[in-house]
Amino acid sequence: MHGIIESLITELTRLPGIGRKSAQRLAFFILSMPESEAMSIAEAIRKVKQTARFCSQCFNITDSDLCEVCSDDSRDRHRIVVVEEPSNILVIERTKAFRCLYHVLLGALSPIDGITPEKLKINELVDRVKNNGVQEVVIATNPNTKGEITAQYIKEVLHPLGVKVTRIAYGLPMGSDIEFADEVTLSKALEGRREL
Amino acid sequence: MHGIIESLITELTRLPGIGRKSAQRLAFFILSMPESEAMSIAEAIRKVKQTARFCSQCFNITDSDLCEVCSDDSRDRHRIVVVEEPSNILVIERTKAFRCLYHVLLGALSPIDGITPEKLKINELVDRVKNNGVQEVVIATNPNTKGEITAQYIKEVLHPLGVKVTRIAYGLPMGSDIEFADEVTLSKALEGRREL
Repeated sequence: MHGIIESLITELTRLPGIGRKSAQRLAFFILSMPESEAMSIAEAIRKVKQTARFCSQCFNITDSDLCEVCSDDSRDRHRIVVVEEPSNILVIERTKAFRCLYHVLLGALSPIDGITPEKLKINELVDRVKNNGVQEVVIATNPNTKGEITAQYIKEVLHPLGVKVTRIAYGLPMGSDIEFADEVTLSKALEGRREL
Repeated sequence: MHGIIESLITELTRLPGIGRKSAQRLAFFILSMPESEAMSIAEAIRKVKQTARFCSQCFNITDSDLCEVCSDDSRDRHRIVVVEEPSNILVIERTKAFRCLYHVLLGALSPIDGITPEKLKINELVDRVKNNGVQEVVIATNPNTKGEITAQYIKEVLHPLGVKVTRIAYGLPMGSDIEFADEVTLSKALEGRREL
């Protein structure tokens, strides 16, 4: 019954944290929304899938060759914050602690899962540091085992280049995920970074 | 930054129960989904908005003139369950307690908010009862003040027609919403219905 509503409910349950009851609630809400608002949700999903790609310099999400951060001339280009995922940039930007550049690794080292350094954007980071007068690399990988291994590995490959390599401070509880940190904790962690 | 992601996040926060952090999580999940899956979510939203209308008989949601329930010949056509909203039908269907027809009022009486009987599909219910050999009308409006007033009102307008009018039993806690009832409670409430 309700064929079209049922399909919307089924589609919505694909999303994380959306069970059958939430999906049902969302579906009937969508049904009651002004058509233009519902359409602009559909359009935003479509657009993100059709135009999203990785920034050719830092691997942030963008819809053009360089992302908005990389193409912003007012940024401090001497400092690069290294993160695991594009979504981490959003969280760090919100702290307003830095106005710098980023580098997204697109993951963290995990030899057991076959995630070796070549699978991540580490060589690309080394090239950026070599060629662009970078003075400090702030490693903001997650404060868990994979993130730590990744930070240590990057510290080692950057060592010959003489660049300052720092690690975001442990204001974050160990074993957690940077994604869910509150802004104050994350700001403190950025301030308290220490050299590796 | 992340223009397209930001717009998707903003769009998603329009939905009920989706705050900024959940929206962010959903947006990055959508970004990582296979394109076809994300597109079919967008398509389901679009389709629901473009094709959904009310059943001309019972005011359920449908994409044709009669809804799937009304056009199902195997249904018991002597009994009509009256609900406030189309979404309530889905919940009642899931109990499998009845294989009957429905009538959606599209709201509940609330004189204080200007919701008078003419604003609801009550006349249409009376016409159905008059013309279609209905033997029982089960009133399944919400067990709260508005739902009770609505049930009493319907009982009165149907009285001259001599049809049996029953009210869903109070297995449901008072003041709650039928939308969030579990199936067992709702089944029991349907079984224990009593004549008004």
